Amino acid sequence: MPDAKQQALPAANRTVFFVSDGTGITAETFGHSLLTQFDLKFKQIRLPFIDSLEKAYEAVRKINDAYAVEGNRPIVFSTLVQANLSEVVFKSKGLHMDLIQTFVAPLEQELGIKSTHSVGRSHNIADTEEYKNRIEAINFSLAHDDGQSHKNLSAADVILVGVSRSGKTPTTLYLAMQYGIKAANYPLIPEDFERGKLPSALPVFKGKIFGLSITPERLSEIRNERRPGSKYASLENCRYEVNEAEAMMKREGIHWLSSTAKSIEEIATTILQEIKSDIKTY
Amino acid sequence: MPDAKQQALPAANRTVFFVSDGTGITAETFGHSLLTQFDLKFKQIRLPFIDSLEKAYEAVRKINDAYAVEGNRPIVFSTLVQANLSEVVFKSKGLHMDLIQTFVAPLEQELGIKSTHSVGRSHNIADTEEYKNRIEAINFSLAHDDGQSHKNLSAADVILVGVSRSGKTPTTLYLAMQYGIKAANYPLIPEDFERGKLPSALPVFKGKIFGLSITPERLSEIRNERRPGSKYASLENCRYEVNEAEAMMKREGIHWLSSTAKSIEEIATTILQEIKSDIKTY
Repeated sequence: MPDAKQQALPAANRTVFFVSDGTGITAETFGHSLLTQFDLKFKQIRLPFIDSLEKAYEAVRKINDAYAVEGNRPIVFSTLVQANLSEVVFKSKGLHMDLIQTFVAPLEQELGIKSTHSVGRSHNIADTEEYKNRIEAINFSLAHDDGQSHKNLSAADVILVGVSRSGKTPTTLYLAMQYGIKAANYPLIPEDFERGKLPSALPVFKGKIFGLSITPERLSEIRNERRPGSKYASLENCRYEVNEAEAMMKREGIHWLSSTAKSIEEIATTILQEIKSDIKTY
Repeated sequence: MPDAKQQALPAANRTVFFVSDGTGITAETFGHSLLTQFDLKFKQIRLPFIDSLEKAYEAVRKINDAYAVEGNRPIVFSTLVQANLSEVVFKSKGLHMDLIQTFVAPLEQELGIKSTHSVGRSHNIADTEEYKNRIEAINFSLAHDDGQSHKNLSAADVILVGVSRSGKTPTTLYLAMQYGIKAANYPLIPEDFERGKLPSALPVFKGKIFGLSITPERLSEIRNERRPGSKYASLENCRYEVNEAEAMMKREGIHWLSSTAKSIEEIATTILQEIKSDIKTY
């Protein structure tokens, strides 16, 4: 994900290309990780689905055009699996960061077998069980967003709880989309605090409940964007709700984390560590 | 995403580690792309948030333990930004694929500046405008799922249409989550086909409507999982709906693609190419 803070950085006057025979998401994610290590702002062009010689030559033309215009070598992150396409793109005037070819050779040597050179194989999964699980998990998470349904909670891998706007919904959707985790979420609301009890559908599933909390200041800021000046968004009310929610989670022995300075990805990864063994075979 | 077909592959009796000072998502995504080039099944361990010397030594212990047990060198994909942590992990008995250090040096040389070595920087974006846009886009897409709301459709970046279960919901959520795209979606239903018109809220936004279609056979399969033996799921009815929907999109000049053999990522990337210039600055 691009970092908006970088908008204020000096322009590199240089274009970065992400070239892939698939979606280019891997090349782009990885390229971003590297480029954020430099305090410069780059123009960025994604060239996905480069899966023929013709398209590879077209990509080279675009890279060389950028060079001609800017006078600086474009940076090219590529995940081209087919060696003949990679060779074509490699002849462009860009600085070539070849994510596949760089690592395939040492892997082939270590594993003692040749790579299969399958194009876009890691994304070509629309027909697999894994993929079906993801879609099913997304549907599950949507149906169980915000305490909408008590049905089938026993099928949930995790149930997130927390005050309104603490980050539950994006986290459950990310867990479903990225990892195929069935995640329900329930808001903790003033009525629960008055009763001093978790929402009634939950206690039986305590083993898979995980909490999100947030600082009252940040919560008030987020809620004010939605309902400016409301009691709901007031710092006083946010303090009350957060205190009550944390007290309740403590009392119930529910693990929680603070979402305040964390991205969806960081929250989801932390939860995954808590609820799942980190070992799987693939 | 792991490929379920690989479950049937021979076991490599070898562990792959993804070691990161952040979530490890980049290392894992990239590692999967590479490993799917080999017809072997690996055990996989994610070690996220390795951000101290102590944790780095602990990671080395785990890698060396796997070597001792399996007798094969573990494969280590790492995205450790801090050189001192990377050096520690590098001393493990694994085969080291260092995604950062491998490419940082040539980039530093080309750009003529030193990298900032910021830990997990690309993910540390919870406070940026970009991040707020993503959260806002997720909320927008949820509120405008399945034609639920006609409000603020003018704010949508794209409006997906297609028959029920053609893949609209996961695609809109992915566009929002990954790219901060505000995506609404509307089902095309038998009532629309009888009227011979798009849902009434849509014609004014025709410029940003994009269609999803699917083969009747695949649609029937998917619907049968939900409502086995129903008229809704019957091949005959699916044929009727798909034919009508495609005829309507053709008549209205709406671009569409077939979601049949595509992953969410592939559908989303294709739509992005259609609706957005592929150039942005970051």
